Amino acid sequence: MKKIVNPGTTQIINLLKRPVAKRNNLEATVKTIFAAVKKDADKALKKYTKQFDNAVINSFIVDEKTIAGAADKLSPALKAAIQLAKKNITIFHTTQKEKVQKTETTKGVFCWRENRAIEKVGLYIPGGTAPLFSTVLMLGIPAVLAGCKEIILCTPPDKNGEINPAILYAANLVGIKGIYSVGGIQAIAGLCFGTESIPQVFKIFGPGNQYVTAAKQMALQYNVAIDMPAGPSEVLIIADKKANASFVAADLLAQAEHGADSQVILLSDNEKITDKILTEIKKQVAVLPRKNIALQALKNSTAIVLNNITDCITLSNFYAPEHLIIATEKPLALVKKITNAGSVFLGKYSCESAGDYASGTNHTLPTNGYARNYSGVSLDSFVKKITFQEITKEGINNIGPAIALMAEAEHLYAHKNAVTVRLNN
Amino acid sequence: MKKIVNPGTTQIINLLKRPVAKRNNLEATVKTIFAAVKKDADKALKKYTKQFDNAVINSFIVDEKTIAGAADKLSPALKAAIQLAKKNITIFHTTQKEKVQKTETTKGVFCWRENRAIEKVGLYIPGGTAPLFSTVLMLGIPAVLAGCKEIILCTPPDKNGEINPAILYAANLVGIKGIYSVGGIQAIAGLCFGTESIPQVFKIFGPGNQYVTAAKQMALQYNVAIDMPAGPSEVLIIADKKANASFVAADLLAQAEHGADSQVILLSDNEKITDKILTEIKKQVAVLPRKNIALQALKNSTAIVLNNITDCITLSNFYAPEHLIIATEKPLALVKKITNAGSVFLGKYSCESAGDYASGTNHTLPTNGYARNYSGVSLDSFVKKITFQEITKEGINNIGPAIALMAEAEHLYAHKNAVTVRLNN
Repeated sequence: MKKIVNPGTTQIINLLKRPVAKRNNLEATVKTIFAAVKKDADKALKKYTKQFDNAVINSFIVDEKTIAGAADKLSPALKAAIQLAKKNITIFHTTQKEKVQKTETTKGVFCWRENRAIEKVGLYIPGGTAPLFSTVLMLGIPAVLAGCKEIILCTPPDKNGEINPAILYAANLVGIKGIYSVGGIQAIAGLCFGTESIPQVFKIFGPGNQYVTAAKQMALQYNVAIDMPAGPSEVLIIADKKANASFVAADLLAQAEHGADSQVILLSDNEKITDKILTEIKKQVAVLPRKNIALQALKNSTAIVLNNITDCITLSNFYAPEHLIIATEKPLALVKKITNAGSVFLGKYSCESAGDYASGTNHTLPTNGYARNYSGVSLDSFVKKITFQEITKEGINNIGPAIALMAEAEHLYAHKNAVTVRLNN
Repeated sequence: MKKIVNPGTTQIINLLKRPVAKRNNLEATVKTIFAAVKKDADKALKKYTKQFDNAVINSFIVDEKTIAGAADKLSPALKAAIQLAKKNITIFHTTQKEKVQKTETTKGVFCWRENRAIEKVGLYIPGGTAPLFSTVLMLGIPAVLAGCKEIILCTPPDKNGEINPAILYAANLVGIKGIYSVGGIQAIAGLCFGTESIPQVFKIFGPGNQYVTAAKQMALQYNVAIDMPAGPSEVLIIADKKANASFVAADLLAQAEHGADSQVILLSDNEKITDKILTEIKKQVAVLPRKNIALQALKNSTAIVLNNITDCITLSNFYAPEHLIIATEKPLALVKKITNAGSVFLGKYSCESAGDYASGTNHTLPTNGYARNYSGVSLDSFVKKITFQEITKEGINNIGPAIALMAEAEHLYAHKNAVTVRLNN
């Protein structure tokens, strides 16, 4: 992790460039698999599961007995931890429920908005080395709270055709019934078109490798919505001289271990604390099991010393980090100035890991600068907001003449006529 | 407009198929123009404005004097109408502001969400035969209410290089300063990359023809967000025997005049009222200035008689119309059953034209079945919702052990370490 003191603007812009993901020409592969799943449905899912996951699956849906049995395979302590996380995530996402507010905009003109769950949603949970059961909670809890009727969870099987019990336990705990042993591009294609086994859905959520990401982009072309565009995970930390160097180093490394393409940025108004943090990083990284990944990510990463904390905030808003940790003496004083970030962690005890797992906020967040124009996943992501209006006779008399004039000015005479037939009635 | 009585399920699915838009291989054109604008900026904008709009533009930004002068070109009555619409749209969109709710999910763990405006937004307003100043209100008012810092409005000039005064007046009224005389693919490319004249934006809103739609899709590839995928406009009306045939016919025609690819659907439990409405349509369409467009659209359109109103609602939810008009005796009783729609109009005086112009709801709505998985434009469309958390020492002691266990179970040891350094402190 390199250190730069007081760089110029151009240098800053170059330093904050995100690592560009290799595309590897995935589009052709995605197209082929989508076409096969559209045509051969389950048969194609079986073929690709054999090919990519090296697993033979006869029935994609995980049976109730296997799901119920998963609980026995986890330690009581881990189950209690997952339950605590579920409680906090539920509490926080419940605050996102909207009350209906009926408003009379003009006498006799009543307008309001009501939320309706997206009826069918697909949740993709990656498999591989780490079983991301925390993502099951982060997507499953708001889906259930929103009232989605069909919640379809897809996750790749291991070579024995099995799903990690922590994923099954978390899914069962939040109330997901449909768990399917299928992953990768073929899972996304299955959710997009529907097969004999996998129901078709209207929106697909969840993280994934570059194949899954490319498949989600393809799903957009078939009128399926997705949670948000994806990119490598990242954190930006603003630390002043009062920061705890050991905590900040640990937070930077927590992000760096995600992947070789992760990026971590440290901003400070103090070179001494910056040096202390960099020294701590060297110490802590040495004992990490995912040391090699973290070291790769640190190569994309920079510590920048600026004149003051205001400059740090300005730069952070320019970068628009997925995660922003404010490790300063008075973090709350900076909240109003933060304009672009996915999720913000204030003060020395608010580590990103808390938000990743159990504090209650969602960990599915906009990366790659998308915090400028996208929000993270929330209850909103699982609903549509439908507007309603009820206009009385008095109401149409009050606004009808204005509507008729405006419609005429836009040369839309049938629009005008729809009002005048009522006014003349 | 054909009439079908009690069709079977397969027949219904075929009847409700939307007209498929011709793509005409636009991608190559869009790519060429995007590359040119990226490279030559204003020079390219001038070239394409000459080529497509037949206008020579020296300065894209509309000067203050021209904007101020637009008011003199509109009748006082039209200005009053636009002001009334502005008032109602402002009132309704103000109800969409969210209060910050700080929640303590576990003792010492505080989570909340704050909205921040998307800093730079582009509003595209089509030109052509009809000056869509109503869309200026529908996009400009929530953008200003949300607090977007830069609001860039692009609209194509006529062959004299001028913008319709109603568009200028509406933009000025809502407080938009940056109005640019540029349209089509080149305008979207300008907003996407920025040029000497046009500022780069983070999100692009607004309707447009197939070129603009294709350009917005391309903008997505450059990390710019868009309001929603586009499609031809549509209405579905559910009418029972108490419906006013003349009103319903006028509403169907108001939708049909939008374009030859528009679709209107009438559902009823009563064949007599259906016939009456179809007769009214024939009468009313004859005198419409946009008669030929409406007649084309009616070819894509169907009246379906079903057994009861519940079946009509089920079918409407399956179709997921952009606009849904409930012309029944007790429309409010049906509200809870509506699951997929963009905007809903209840009762005989609630015509779609009201929502298009002046009742207060937004007219930028999901078409083409997207009401299943997208909401219409609202204040939400102009903000990001950022989550915040502040955890005390007590808070991390309460949830830290659970986080450490979950991180370990996901094999993310640096995540675990970020907690344990704090617990051990």
